[in-house]
Amino acid sequence: MFMRALVTGGAGFIGSHLVDRLVSRGDEVLVVDNLSSGVLEFIQGHIDSGAVDFHQVDLKDLESLKPLLNGVEMVYHLAANPDIRLGTRITDTDLKEGTIATYNVLESMRLANVEKIAFASSSVVYGENAPMPTPENHGPCLPISLYGASKQAGEGLIGSWVGTFGLQAWIFRFANIIGERGTHGVIFDFIHKLKADPSRLEVLGNGLQEKSYMEVGDCVDAILHVIDNTDERINLYNLGSNDTCSVRNIAAIVVRETGCEGASIEYTGGDRGWAGDIPKAMLAINRLKELGFKVNYDSEEAVAHTARVLIQEIMG
Amino acid sequence: MFMRALVTGGAGFIGSHLVDRLVSRGDEVLVVDNLSSGVLEFIQGHIDSGAVDFHQVDLKDLESLKPLLNGVEMVYHLAANPDIRLGTRITDTDLKEGTIATYNVLESMRLANVEKIAFASSSVVYGENAPMPTPENHGPCLPISLYGASKQAGEGLIGSWVGTFGLQAWIFRFANIIGERGTHGVIFDFIHKLKADPSRLEVLGNGLQEKSYMEVGDCVDAILHVIDNTDERINLYNLGSNDTCSVRNIAAIVVRETGCEGASIEYTGGDRGWAGDIPKAMLAINRLKELGFKVNYDSEEAVAHTARVLIQEIMG
Repeated sequence: MFMRALVTGGAGFIGSHLVDRLVSRGDEVLVVDNLSSGVLEFIQGHIDSGAVDFHQVDLKDLESLKPLLNGVEMVYHLAANPDIRLGTRITDTDLKEGTIATYNVLESMRLANVEKIAFASSSVVYGENAPMPTPENHGPCLPISLYGASKQAGEGLIGSWVGTFGLQAWIFRFANIIGERGTHGVIFDFIHKLKADPSRLEVLGNGLQEKSYMEVGDCVDAILHVIDNTDERINLYNLGSNDTCSVRNIAAIVVRETGCEGASIEYTGGDRGWAGDIPKAMLAINRLKELGFKVNYDSEEAVAHTARVLIQEIMG
Repeated sequence: MFMRALVTGGAGFIGSHLVDRLVSRGDEVLVVDNLSSGVLEFIQGHIDSGAVDFHQVDLKDLESLKPLLNGVEMVYHLAANPDIRLGTRITDTDLKEGTIATYNVLESMRLANVEKIAFASSSVVYGENAPMPTPENHGPCLPISLYGASKQAGEGLIGSWVGTFGLQAWIFRFANIIGERGTHGVIFDFIHKLKADPSRLEVLGNGLQEKSYMEVGDCVDAILHVIDNTDERINLYNLGSNDTCSVRNIAAIVVRETGCEGASIEYTGGDRGWAGDIPKAMLAINRLKELGFKVNYDSEEAVAHTARVLIQEIMG
């Protein structure tokens, strides 16, 4: 299984955990990251030890990307704008950092004859009003966020490279991935708000939003497990946990873990945090389990664990 | 129903037929077309009569597009690279003329507060191995051509504009649309081949490819019928006919209609015409029919009709 792997977004939250796993099993790892949201410190130890070859390259720059693919056997394409809400204000970020970046990765792979790709897609491709839990064969998929549109576009581009140029692909539709080194998301936001003002916590929406949360270690273990146990030309799997956790519950957990028990929790109201947010989401993970994978953390455990580690990271 | 409508690709094959309908019912029609595959002659009569305001603008040029949206009430976004096979040789055409062009249309609409869009998507978004006939809720959709990827990306972008910016949308997944003014496709190709050499006809693949064909007049009637009879925020419909026609049968029809009965039909072999071609496709059109729409032409009738009109256009 030792191979030359390239991880896009490898200095990011999920990417850096994947890099940890690949290094520990002996893969030769190239990381490509523009450090727009990635944090070099996350992988500095691997760079210093010589286990990771780091390139600060922007995926939008096709010409700089191309030569990096020479000799690569497997691409893990995780780079993306991680801030879903941004699309409500700036409309071309997901197009450029998501869709066009994915095109550039695929085109570079084609030119260098790299044959395998794993792609981080998202549960948000299912859009609104999908059945819960949502199976992989749900349709039609009409995402409601610009981030979701870019993930769906990435899936389609990969499908077309598989069908037209003979690529082999693994597509993972992620639930909300949380844990150590998280750089965005609801838990991260709550901790920052309480750090700024321990007396109150503003919650976007009515707090009844309810989603599946998966711990990042579970997520990267699942990625590698699925790749090791499947071999179709295109393999598409939901990755998530067995249950959901409400935003109201997350607020209570973060208030408790920060020791801000006196904070008043204030809801901005409405069924969702922002236009394009999906209020309720839970993925069916039967197919993942049928491959023999066991999820360690349920959603609430993952939230509590994440709150504890992020409080350490943010509040010190 | 008189409104100010903008038709992208309005000088093209399907677009020009739609323009005919919109003009005849009294809409004020703007056509935007870069004439890369559109033919000005198709709408010259309407331009001369003042019924159509024509702008030779490339949708890739966002700044030139923006001002054209002022005062528009409805956008029919039909512009695209029409040559699916091109993606096997040039990989960025569908990204630019499809995905990025659609982004530019949506962004221009957002800036000008235009609220309604109809989009020409395609049956190829369903990818390979979909059940036949394929219903709209089939999933997962993994297109195998770069053209299909761009259509799926367009659907996702539209979904995200609906969910994030309050747009209302109609998405149409087209079967193979054929008829008068066709500028590409199997019938068009066969006639050109027989014009060049009436003694032989080369057919890509084994001829057993089998798809639904819809006559272009049926197609544009169906578009307007669905829009008039639906009012969800996002309305997605398959448009096709009731049956299929094989490539073998199309070859026989074209040979007969051209009077080239002596031509030897030569198959290149294989189950498909090219990498990324879908060998068999038939859309379920129950939902279209439930809206009270009646398809005039079955596939074989549409093929025979198209062969006759294109022979006139091509052979004179």
